[in-house]
Amino acid sequence: MTDRRLTAGEAFAAALPGGRWSQDDAVVDAHRLDRSGWHPPGRPLGVAFARTVDDVRAVLREAVARGVPVTVRGAGTGLAGGAAAPDGAVILDLAGMNRIRELSVADAVAVVEPGVITDDLDRAARAVGLTYSPDPASSAISTVGGNIATNAGGLRCAKYGVTRESVLGLDVVLADGELVSTGRRTVKGVAGYDLTGLFVGSEGTLGVVVGATLRLRPAPRRTVTLAAFFDSFGAAVDAVTEIMATGIVVAMAELLDGPTMRAVDAATGSDLATSGQAFLLVQTDGAGAGDEADAVEAVLRGRARAVRRSADTTDPAAAELLAARRAALPALERIGRVLIEDIAVPRSRLARAAARIAEIGADTGVQIFTIAHAADGNLHPIIVVDRTGGAGGPAGETDEIPAEAWKAADLIFQTALDLGGTVTGEHGIGALKRRWLGAELGTTNHSLQQRLRRLFDPTGILSPGRGL
Amino acid sequence: MTDRRLTAGEAFAAALPGGRWSQDDAVVDAHRLDRSGWHPPGRPLGVAFARTVDDVRAVLREAVARGVPVTVRGAGTGLAGGAAAPDGAVILDLAGMNRIRELSVADAVAVVEPGVITDDLDRAARAVGLTYSPDPASSAISTVGGNIATNAGGLRCAKYGVTRESVLGLDVVLADGELVSTGRRTVKGVAGYDLTGLFVGSEGTLGVVVGATLRLRPAPRRTVTLAAFFDSFGAAVDAVTEIMATGIVVAMAELLDGPTMRAVDAATGSDLATSGQAFLLVQTDGAGAGDEADAVEAVLRGRARAVRRSADTTDPAAAELLAARRAALPALERIGRVLIEDIAVPRSRLARAAARIAEIGADTGVQIFTIAHAADGNLHPIIVVDRTGGAGGPAGETDEIPAEAWKAADLIFQTALDLGGTVTGEHGIGALKRRWLGAELGTTNHSLQQRLRRLFDPTGILSPGRGL
Repeated sequence: MTDRRLTAGEAFAAALPGGRWSQDDAVVDAHRLDRSGWHPPGRPLGVAFARTVDDVRAVLREAVARGVPVTVRGAGTGLAGGAAAPDGAVILDLAGMNRIRELSVADAVAVVEPGVITDDLDRAARAVGLTYSPDPASSAISTVGGNIATNAGGLRCAKYGVTRESVLGLDVVLADGELVSTGRRTVKGVAGYDLTGLFVGSEGTLGVVVGATLRLRPAPRRTVTLAAFFDSFGAAVDAVTEIMATGIVVAMAELLDGPTMRAVDAATGSDLATSGQAFLLVQTDGAGAGDEADAVEAVLRGRARAVRRSADTTDPAAAELLAARRAALPALERIGRVLIEDIAVPRSRLARAAARIAEIGADTGVQIFTIAHAADGNLHPIIVVDRTGGAGGPAGETDEIPAEAWKAADLIFQTALDLGGTVTGEHGIGALKRRWLGAELGTTNHSLQQRLRRLFDPTGILSPGRGL
Repeated sequence: MTDRRLTAGEAFAAALPGGRWSQDDAVVDAHRLDRSGWHPPGRPLGVAFARTVDDVRAVLREAVARGVPVTVRGAGTGLAGGAAAPDGAVILDLAGMNRIRELSVADAVAVVEPGVITDDLDRAARAVGLTYSPDPASSAISTVGGNIATNAGGLRCAKYGVTRESVLGLDVVLADGELVSTGRRTVKGVAGYDLTGLFVGSEGTLGVVVGATLRLRPAPRRTVTLAAFFDSFGAAVDAVTEIMATGIVVAMAELLDGPTMRAVDAATGSDLATSGQAFLLVQTDGAGAGDEADAVEAVLRGRARAVRRSADTTDPAAAELLAARRAALPALERIGRVLIEDIAVPRSRLARAAARIAEIGADTGVQIFTIAHAADGNLHPIIVVDRTGGAGGPAGETDEIPAEAWKAADLIFQTALDLGGTVTGEHGIGALKRRWLGAELGTTNHSLQQRLRRLFDPTGILSPGRGL
């Protein structure tokens, strides 16, 4: 199969002619990490810049023949170390496979390559009256393929579901280089097992997604934005609970805690924290957006210290209300190095989870700021650590996550499990959450999943030490 | 493991004491078939009436030890022969495991046993302001477990998705008797592979679902029903396309063709067919139901021969409009024995599929009546055959499906595949569609799924000859 007279580097160069294989130090360094901040030990072998399905097949065949691990990479925006390449790995970069092959208004379907930027797809869909609903916070820079690998969530999934709910079918190159097509172009279909759903969220461990048939939805004609300030995080959660009890499915319910509000104020000169200890942003959309916003506003006025409302998406007030949410992460990044955690709990446990996270911060002395997708029970406790401590990495940053931050993260994950939740709502297991996976899944489930993984990848070349 | 001095019947009786095992002819006959009308050859061994998870585990352990096939059964409303038990099989009846264990308003979640009747769950949810969205036409008599086994669709999935979109987690007894819990109680969660999705729609071939954590949704406060008559099926499809282009997600879009309208008229004394050749029923729901109905009505008035509209669900006019759809199947059952087919095509191909089905009826001389879930591109071509022809079965009915009906079905499935669709939108492969599965999936996919099946069930006791 492979030519044994060649070194591994030479063999991959031969498989991907025309400069699409590089072992250059600067190129490898630019592609070896994701946004988790985690630096795996050792050094990847090189970067394969795939342009076609056949490129991907050639790389995987060579990798299997030589037992070389493969790390698949989109834009590298993952937060769990899934795309942080291990020692000796081929980094399979799919960013260049970025064509929107088809956008069908009649079928409300897009057929894309995996490297398409999420927002680019949504923009193309909106130009014809449709929308691609999944909107992870990274959508301006992340790829659809990466979103599929992690089953990315986002803000709008309160109403429109996670990435899984928008994937109708996939083209996947299996570990042995075979190409398989799963799913279909129709909205419904039950012929055979749901392999599409199995590949979504599998974090590059079962195969390499090289194409996707995606469901588009009608772009909502109208969106109304409301914001409210509360005396406490718990009071804001109670308001969300009451809104949901009215029967309204909001398009977004984003919640910032007091520390995050103060960080935004410090960064932007706003004065959020003078109005309360929790900031809630709600959107309603569609034909009933106005009526729904009226009902939401009535709930908020009964519970909040202050309420603001925009007339429509085109209203400058809407952008202003959204700005506080958008400013949160940049504001925290000014303070130090951010570790974005990601747990989800049953909705009734949201306030308790947030209170426990605040206690964990106090107990461990670690700064924790909490943002939540409140309608989904999905919390992002953001741990901010000193940028200059530890062992020292590129640009003076540390490679190491301080022990007290791990301790806080451990307590946060334990909280999620104690409350009947999960250690990852939308970011994935990657490399960094593997130690908690067994506790969440239980032995029977975990072992079944490991056998499943071996079935798809008997030689273990796909993302070793990542995901499951 | 098993006591070899016992016969298989004695062993199962010992595993399920207290009369929960029967080999009585009348009991076996009452439980051996589903609603497909298909009689498999041979005779099942007996019926195991499970009441607990441990009952299911005991049955599977005994079945594996003796190599006895197991057919899992809910209410037996399947239409593809999936629950039609083969020769020598244990029929594992879960209808007695029918408790709603929990219904949480705060988390919008229900935890149920598999034998709960679908409508019973929805009724319980509506009593607290919530709803269980999946509504297969059989919801008054089918079980949640059966819906999960086939990933059942329904009328409302135009807006709320298929069964899969309402299943958060499962308890499953694997072939070896091990119990595994998948998924979670949270809306979001990406720890590990989506085993939940893999079990949904697996038709009893990967394990036995003994518990489910289900997502409930707010019950819509208002529902508006509209009906319209068109000169042709194609004109009605064009109206649906235009409605969807307005950005409105309708809660229901049911379409009856001319032959079905005439059958309803003959059965009920209505005069649908005097108003047109296609009948379209549309519902809008939620806070924007009124505004959305206005927009739908405007489209319908521009294209239909006649339009009717109900004020609300409580309006008697709504029930009257729905009655035509509800009367369709009983009306066809008066004419003869019905074989309900189930294909789905990309929405843009819906009219072409319907036209081709009409041609197939004319070419083969087989009576075919078509009902469609139009928003999903899901068509039910209903083949009606003579009740008295063929080999003769119980109560004078034939066991055999006439050759020309198979021929027509074959052409219908070929049409679905030619148009980029699927041979089953929501009913499953069962026993009767296996011969078309390979053509739909392709060799690589099919073989991968077969290996997956063997991983879960190495001895092949679960639903042999069914599903995949």
